[in-house]
Parts: sequence; C-alpha cells; structure tokens
Amino acid sequence: MAVSMYAIAVPTFQKQLTALDAILDKATEYAAAKKIDISVLLAARLYPDMFNLTRQVQLATDFAKAAPARLAGTPVPSFPDTETTMPEIKQRIAKTLALLADVKPEQLNGSETKQLTVNVGGKEVTLTGQDYLLHVSFPNFYFHCATAYDILRHNGLEIGKRDFVRG
Amino acid sequence: MAVSMYAIAVPTFQKQLTALDAILDKATEYAAAKKIDISVLLAARLYPDMFNLTRQVQLATDFAKAAPARLAGTPVPSFPDTETTMPEIKQRIAKTLALLADVKPEQLNGSETKQLTVNVGGKEVTLTGQDYLLHVSFPNFYFHCATAYDILRHNGLEIGKRDFVRG
Repeated sequence: MAVSMYAIAVPTFQKQLTALDAILDKATEYAAAKKIDISVLLAARLYPDMFNLTRQVQLATDFAKAAPARLAGTPVPSFPDTETTMPEIKQRIAKTLALLADVKPEQLNGSETKQLTVNVGGKEVTLTGQDYLLHVSFPNFYFHCATAYDILRHNGLEIGKRDFVRG
Repeated sequence: MAVSMYAIAVPTFQKQLTALDAILDKATEYAAAKKIDISVLLAARLYPDMFNLTRQVQLATDFAKAAPARLAGTPVPSFPDTETTMPEIKQRIAKTLALLADVKPEQLNGSETKQLTVNVGGKEVTLTGQDYLLHVSFPNFYFHCATAYDILRHNGLEIGKRDFVRG
C-alpha cells in the first residue's frame, strides 16, 4: 500500500539519465550536421556564472550515484570531474547507470526513516532518507537534467519535451 | 516500510511551488530595481519556439494540480490560461497550493497500482499511478519549474540553486 524507496529512486535516475544520454546523442548529430565544434556545446551556459553543459551532466550523475549509496549506507562512488569530451561525459552517464543497475531493492529497505546528514545549499542538514531523496536529491537531479536540456535547446538543438519525459 | 503516494506527491509540489513563488518575487524586485518592465520577463523564453516564463509557470501548476486529482480519481481542476501579469501568475500558484492543502492522504491510498490513462508527449498511455506520478508528472513538473528558473537566470536574475532546492 505504498512505494518502496528503491522504486521511487532507482527507476527515476535510470529513466532520466537514459533520456539525457539520448539528448546528448542528438546534440552530437546536430553539431556534426551544422559543423559546430562539439566543445562549443559542452562549454555552453545560460549565463556567465552558471555551470556549462559538461558540469550540468556531471552534477546530474553526482546526484544519481549519491542517493542510492547514501540511502544504503555505502560509500558514495567518487568520479573525478575530468571529462572534456562528449564520449567522456556519455561514459560518465554509462558508469552511473551501471552503478544504479547494481543497487538491490533490499539495500534501500527502511531508508525512508534513516537519518542522513547532507549538504543543502552549502549548509549541513540532517533529514530522513525520504526527505533527502524527495526534497534534496530529486530537485537537484532534475534541475541539472532540465538545465542541460535548456542549454542545448537555447543553442538551437531541436528537441522537445518528449525527449525529456519518456513516461 | 515504504512511502505513501501522498507523501511522495503532495509535499514535492508544495515545496517546489513555494520556491517558484519566491523566485517570482525576486524577479519582481529585480525588475523594479533595474527598471525592467515585468512583462518583458514574463514573456522571456530561451528559444523562439519554447514557452515563455508565464507558460512555464502555468504548466508547472497544471502538473501539480492534475496529479493528486488523477490519483484520487476526482476531476482535474481547470484553470483558464489567461494570466498576463505577475500577480495573476502568483495567484495561480496560490490557487494550486490551496488545492494541494485540501488533498487528504487517504484519498491517494492505493493509487500506486491504479491504472490511469494520460497523455504523454501527444499520445495516450495507460500506466500505474506510481509510474504516472514518478515518470510523467514529476519530470514534467520539474522541467517547467527548472526552465522558469533558467529563463530568469538567463535574464540576469541573481538566484542560486538554494532558491530552487530548499530541502
């Protein structure tokens, strides 16, 4: 009569990262067709002090890999932020999807009431696993996925919400 | 040992719409300080064929009001899309928050397995309440909230992720 933490978390990250990966493929094709250096898109941003596309993807994967680990009480896998090419950021998504595929539903059982201390907007807060997942991890994750989409759309990539929401 | 549909849905919409409302207040102050006609920000968009800020807020509230109604099996409240001013779109958020405050947790009990038919990217799909909430409603809702943020950030509003993710 309710939804498990695994079912809330893992398919959400999997579906959205898969969608993001497909959007990056469209960006690659678009750059090739328009003779745009792909590094221009990877470095694109919506305002000078906002993160660029590469960093948006890095952060989306960071939230996706951190949540199951924090909820399961296992170490958060660390990825060095060294990607500079499209194959490299796609590889980072693939590595995150591989980690998500290894999460066992039972590892997250009961994590909804577990107390976690995490950094929210620069300050440490202690909250339940449920609040962390729904009100810290999800809005951060979706923010970076949507901003990656918005950066590409702003740069002329012809994508629509169907590329972002795949049901 | 799991999370209720109410607890997944309602606080998510409430927190994010409250954050969006506060961002719109900052936009109003910014426009006044910079002598920008607020209607310029309301009509701003990231690409000529993307929705403008007003429409992003309308759509965010649409997903927030539709989900609890669909899950509860009650009619989806209809708002005419007639807002043209900042007070009007803030009023739409307030009306949505009032609807969310009226949702009773027990109205959503068992909705995770209910079969719903909804429009996803222009086609009718039938899916469970859980999949609808997590994989249609949430990505759409967050997409429009994040894009509203991105439009304002792109137009120089000094906001940070702390305005979007409030924990």
